[in-house]
Amino acid sequence: MAKKVLKFGGTSVGSIDRIVHAAKIVKKEHDRGNEVIVVVSAMAGTTNNLITHSESISKKFNKRELDVLLASGEQVASALIAGALNNLGVKSKSWMNWQIPILTEGEHTNSRIVNMKVKGINDYLSEGGVAVIPGFQGISKSGDITSIGRGGSDATAVAIAKIFDTDSCEIYTDVEGVYSSDPKKIPVAKKINKISYEEMLELSSLGTKVMQPSAVQTAMMYDIPLQVKSTFTEQKGTEITNQDNIDYTKVVTGVAYSKDDAKITLIGVEDKPGVAADIFEPLSKNEINVDMVIQNISADGKKTDLTFTIKRQDKNTAASLLKNNKKIKYETMQMNDKVSKISIVGAGMVATPGITYKMFRSLAEEKINILAISTSEIKVSVIIDEELTIRALKKLHKTFKLD
Amino acid sequence: MAKKVLKFGGTSVGSIDRIVHAAKIVKKEHDRGNEVIVVVSAMAGTTNNLITHSESISKKFNKRELDVLLASGEQVASALIAGALNNLGVKSKSWMNWQIPILTEGEHTNSRIVNMKVKGINDYLSEGGVAVIPGFQGISKSGDITSIGRGGSDATAVAIAKIFDTDSCEIYTDVEGVYSSDPKKIPVAKKINKISYEEMLELSSLGTKVMQPSAVQTAMMYDIPLQVKSTFTEQKGTEITNQDNIDYTKVVTGVAYSKDDAKITLIGVEDKPGVAADIFEPLSKNEINVDMVIQNISADGKKTDLTFTIKRQDKNTAASLLKNNKKIKYETMQMNDKVSKISIVGAGMVATPGITYKMFRSLAEEKINILAISTSEIKVSVIIDEELTIRALKKLHKTFKLD
Repeated sequence: MAKKVLKFGGTSVGSIDRIVHAAKIVKKEHDRGNEVIVVVSAMAGTTNNLITHSESISKKFNKRELDVLLASGEQVASALIAGALNNLGVKSKSWMNWQIPILTEGEHTNSRIVNMKVKGINDYLSEGGVAVIPGFQGISKSGDITSIGRGGSDATAVAIAKIFDTDSCEIYTDVEGVYSSDPKKIPVAKKINKISYEEMLELSSLGTKVMQPSAVQTAMMYDIPLQVKSTFTEQKGTEITNQDNIDYTKVVTGVAYSKDDAKITLIGVEDKPGVAADIFEPLSKNEINVDMVIQNISADGKKTDLTFTIKRQDKNTAASLLKNNKKIKYETMQMNDKVSKISIVGAGMVATPGITYKMFRSLAEEKINILAISTSEIKVSVIIDEELTIRALKKLHKTFKLD
Repeated sequence: MAKKVLKFGGTSVGSIDRIVHAAKIVKKEHDRGNEVIVVVSAMAGTTNNLITHSESISKKFNKRELDVLLASGEQVASALIAGALNNLGVKSKSWMNWQIPILTEGEHTNSRIVNMKVKGINDYLSEGGVAVIPGFQGISKSGDITSIGRGGSDATAVAIAKIFDTDSCEIYTDVEGVYSSDPKKIPVAKKINKISYEEMLELSSLGTKVMQPSAVQTAMMYDIPLQVKSTFTEQKGTEITNQDNIDYTKVVTGVAYSKDDAKITLIGVEDKPGVAADIFEPLSKNEINVDMVIQNISADGKKTDLTFTIKRQDKNTAASLLKNNKKIKYETMQMNDKVSKISIVGAGMVATPGITYKMFRSLAEEKINILAISTSEIKVSVIIDEELTIRALKKLHKTFKLD
């Protein structure tokens, strides 16, 4: 007998048929004698519809009320799953966050789970009941409904796995697991059987949408093994676990890409201390996240060029902030938003020299020009011309034998 | 300065435009210096959609979970209204039932409000805030989400008016008030300016859908004046109040009709004590509600005919219950479901002789045959051929000068 968290994402409960199907997966686990806590997202589309409603009233819709509004989505899905389980003969009950309660702190629409009471649910589980809990939400110390951000149902699942000390945390989704790259774009992309938290984090922060990064981070912090699997097939899925549990046969685990970036280059910036700080201060104050920064040593020791990347949506704001700030001096500004970021990720990289070189060489072989580079211990990212994205991804899959 | 409950029904919050419009009505009251508690139904269509979802899973969907499911509808509307009010510059907050709390008792899907805490909301009102409360729902002693039946938002509004001791309770709806009959069917029907609780009760239990009968009953019990008015026009609406406050110029206030009835006649029933009880016992055990019962004195003292009406949907069940019960003896059974019930309602009736006669005479003038009759202190109902419904309604409007 094991104690399990089964989390179903929005597409896994996207219709009544799918809800009944998810309930059958839960019943199978319950029939095996396992204690099951179900965490559920809102039915696919619901959250977006509710957000559209709120935005039709105001783009700056009151955040407290936005949390009340959005929380209804998971409430619906929870009640339907619990109802479907009862209908299959499985004793089951939905538990709203205020009924547990799941306590959060932080601001509305972006809270963090800090604690929850376990006794009520544990008693219910030991009586053979299945507890169904809406993901994504909680209540604040003052008793208000809060939410933990888009995709927050993953965070709820991991927090429950931790606080209820479950044996596993299974994330049911609409893909068969984590892939070396987006299989819709790169048909040769392969499912990864095991991946470390760190690699998963890099991949998900680079655009692989399978799991919410902060949930992976929490799982890593408390060493909670996660299983990502498909609701619709019986495939094994991907295990996300500690690096120690992984036998690395490949140095590079996956290739991620994102197309949401824009590159800004300031040419002829003074090369003296404090200049970079002056440039990034107004961006930071306006909550514009700077991703990659490249500054070359200047030839004459006086002037240099500075390149950085930001989210594409921020490009106009960033440009005008720099133009209108008298402290920032440069000769010309170049902007390019037809770029994409390609990253190779692998926990084995740090111990294997030459990976970066191998990446650059294979891109060169495809005549792909690298516009900017950034590296971390388990990742190398490059900015390239957006048109060349697919070609780069395919080549890197070949180079690192991911296909 | 007054303290008011403003209740908005489903069609009054049926779209984002309407929600914003409702918020403007609230703002106007608030700008006048009034303390306002808003009670809101789910957006039109939502509750039916959710019920359809639950029925696709099971016709016997778990009732506890059904309450959790349906409660989401009013939660959405409350958050949207509160958000819209904030957007109009009115300080406002939604209060879920568990946050107040509104305590109920009774079974799931059919609970009654027994109490609620007032301090939090009263403090908020005196700070200039508008409290928005989802109608239709509450929580049980054990902390489960409960609901008080379809149309229960009216009951919530009246209970809040009572417990918060407000100066008025305004029911905003999609019609301009209570009419002497359905204005869609009878164009000459007139809006009633003032009507007593008793008359309203008769009218609403006879099919006038403007307000939920149990809410009117509660208002009557505690003498809470209600105002029914349109969300979409600035007309005065209808006041529902104590009989003492009404200056009766008309004996008959309204003419109601319902087409959901069926008539069953048992011919040749033994005329001895206990026979009627034997007949209605199986119906009662099967929760079939018998409306009108007519039994004539038998000519020979041995056999009589018994006629009763039931809801049309129950007719087949009722017939087979009677046929299969060996205790019940009769010669033949006649069933007619092409009937409608026409009722005249008026609190002044009891003091004005001849009203019943006048009704029968005017129906006779139209050559409308009366199939059954039932009277109460403030109501006379007759069963007639369904095809003659409109003709009867028009004639009675004329007879009692309602047009």
